[in-house]
Amino acid sequence: VEFAVTQVNFVLLGFGNVGRAFARLLLAKRGELRQRYGLDWRVVGIATGRHGAALDPEGIDLEAALALAEAGQSLASLSPVQVPATNLGLIRASQADVLFETTPVNYQTGQPAVDHLRAALEAGMHAISANKGPVVHAYRELSDLARARGRCFYFESAVMDGAPVFSLWREALPGARLLSFRGILNSTTNLILTRMEEGQSFKDAVAYAQSIGVAETDPSGDILGWDAAVKVAALATVLMDRPLKPDQVERQGIEGLTAAVVAAARAGGRRWKLVCQAERTPEGVRASVRPEEVEVGDPLFGVMGTSSAVTFHADVLSGLTLVEENPGPQTTAYGLLADLLNAVRG
Amino acid sequence: VEFAVTQVNFVLLGFGNVGRAFARLLLAKRGELRQRYGLDWRVVGIATGRHGAALDPEGIDLEAALALAEAGQSLASLSPVQVPATNLGLIRASQADVLFETTPVNYQTGQPAVDHLRAALEAGMHAISANKGPVVHAYRELSDLARARGRCFYFESAVMDGAPVFSLWREALPGARLLSFRGILNSTTNLILTRMEEGQSFKDAVAYAQSIGVAETDPSGDILGWDAAVKVAALATVLMDRPLKPDQVERQGIEGLTAAVVAAARAGGRRWKLVCQAERTPEGVRASVRPEEVEVGDPLFGVMGTSSAVTFHADVLSGLTLVEENPGPQTTAYGLLADLLNAVRG
Repeated sequence: VEFAVTQVNFVLLGFGNVGRAFARLLLAKRGELRQRYGLDWRVVGIATGRHGAALDPEGIDLEAALALAEAGQSLASLSPVQVPATNLGLIRASQADVLFETTPVNYQTGQPAVDHLRAALEAGMHAISANKGPVVHAYRELSDLARARGRCFYFESAVMDGAPVFSLWREALPGARLLSFRGILNSTTNLILTRMEEGQSFKDAVAYAQSIGVAETDPSGDILGWDAAVKVAALATVLMDRPLKPDQVERQGIEGLTAAVVAAARAGGRRWKLVCQAERTPEGVRASVRPEEVEVGDPLFGVMGTSSAVTFHADVLSGLTLVEENPGPQTTAYGLLADLLNAVRG
Repeated sequence: VEFAVTQVNFVLLGFGNVGRAFARLLLAKRGELRQRYGLDWRVVGIATGRHGAALDPEGIDLEAALALAEAGQSLASLSPVQVPATNLGLIRASQADVLFETTPVNYQTGQPAVDHLRAALEAGMHAISANKGPVVHAYRELSDLARARGRCFYFESAVMDGAPVFSLWREALPGARLLSFRGILNSTTNLILTRMEEGQSFKDAVAYAQSIGVAETDPSGDILGWDAAVKVAALATVLMDRPLKPDQVERQGIEGLTAAVVAAARAGGRRWKLVCQAERTPEGVRASVRPEEVEVGDPLFGVMGTSSAVTFHADVLSGLTLVEENPGPQTTAYGLLADLLNAVRG
């Protein structure tokens, strides 16, 4: 069977858990992407945080790159040409069609991801990010730039991993106006609260979340509600078209919740959850992150462990809830793939 | 401000609760559709079940049509030209750009909706239906016809009202493969079970559902699980691309559940729900509708009253649940509007 196939070249910035899961997903879906979407891909550039970089206009052997990174070795041996000294240089030299940005988030500035995405768009690439920093710090700028260049700036994985929160509104709910939303957007604190319900102390629950790679060595970004606040800001900025910065989100973390308080709620048939909310006001958006006792009938009551959820209230839909269970790096990787397919199919 | 505006002409087949809610939504969103989507609309034909029909190439006064229908009067006075004697004749004579089909469902044949939709597509119109009959009886035929004519056959409102179950997969989850789904798709039985949990007898709960217009005079289509089976068949047919007829769905209704059985489950912390399921098998799809006792951690546990929900399991997403709370005719109407906007924006 013959059909039209488009060759697209990718450059990957970041090759950690998410970047590597995306590489594996690309390999697993190679045949399907060719057959269902007429898409043939090559990775022509990879920049990693700790394993060097590679550039090959003919296409890098992605399985070899995965093997090297997982063995803790440099990718330099996969590069037949000189690799530029900076990530921006690598992006430009790659002449790729699509940039995938999965570098670590910087809550304060969104950098260096913002610069990476801008460079890609300026070079005529689609810019796809799993990073929420650029969404809260540069959504308008990067979206306007993308539109001017006829390219896409997409970031489905930035909130709720691969669950389609942004594309739901962009693609599936035209003509609806989002009035408010309420959800559980931080997996780490939800897992900690779940473990505390099961009888663990706050400290032990944090240690458990760290032991399975869900919480970071310094877990304060999650526990104090900053990660949740950034996600609320990202959703409000994009879905309500109201630029909102994380420090404009009223914020309270779960650091004050003790095992006794959590147990008392359970004894009363309720549960503590770190609840994220935002609603339109005449002046803009009012948003908050704070622990709340939720009742059994609440759509957030059953969201346990690392699962997440959001309920949308729109002018035309009184309550639409999206729940994502058991996400992982492969789910985030799917968000990047969905963005790619939505970008290239126009 | 000047911008390009496209004039689109509509013909409405069916002017009951859903058709009239859609008409009101069109009127309420007129300015927004013009400004955000460059869309100016006219309704050039309306066929009703009990209030006659109207045809006006210059555009029917939709507020007058609503007032007449709600007063129980004929729409004939709004028609400056002779109205064809049949619905098919009206569709063709309307020369509209989009047909909206909201006539009552026929589980056995999908007719006459299938004929309406086929006539519209053959005349070069987009065909949009709130009716699940044509989806289970003619999905392939109507989709192929739509593709051949460069038009769309969309039916978002056929399952879960305005919740975007079909467009989620078509627009927001490219490259994902649906492996199985499980949900509560029939509002009437879920409301009856909710009332029985509150202490009503089966008979009183049915009477209540009838009194608020949720259950029909003959509620057996809901109670015996037929409506749910048709919806399972529609989802499997479209989302798994496996044609499945309602009588291929293993089916058991809620007619055997007594107040005592419902109360016993509640005493044990569980709830009876009419659970719809389907999963891919090597041979095709295995699907069922049957009452199940669900546990507190189940995503379906908190779905009460007329709310509905579905959990999707895909190759790339382990569990994605969509819950719709408190749907009504206006939610179904929004599904028609979403289909329209997705059709005209290509």
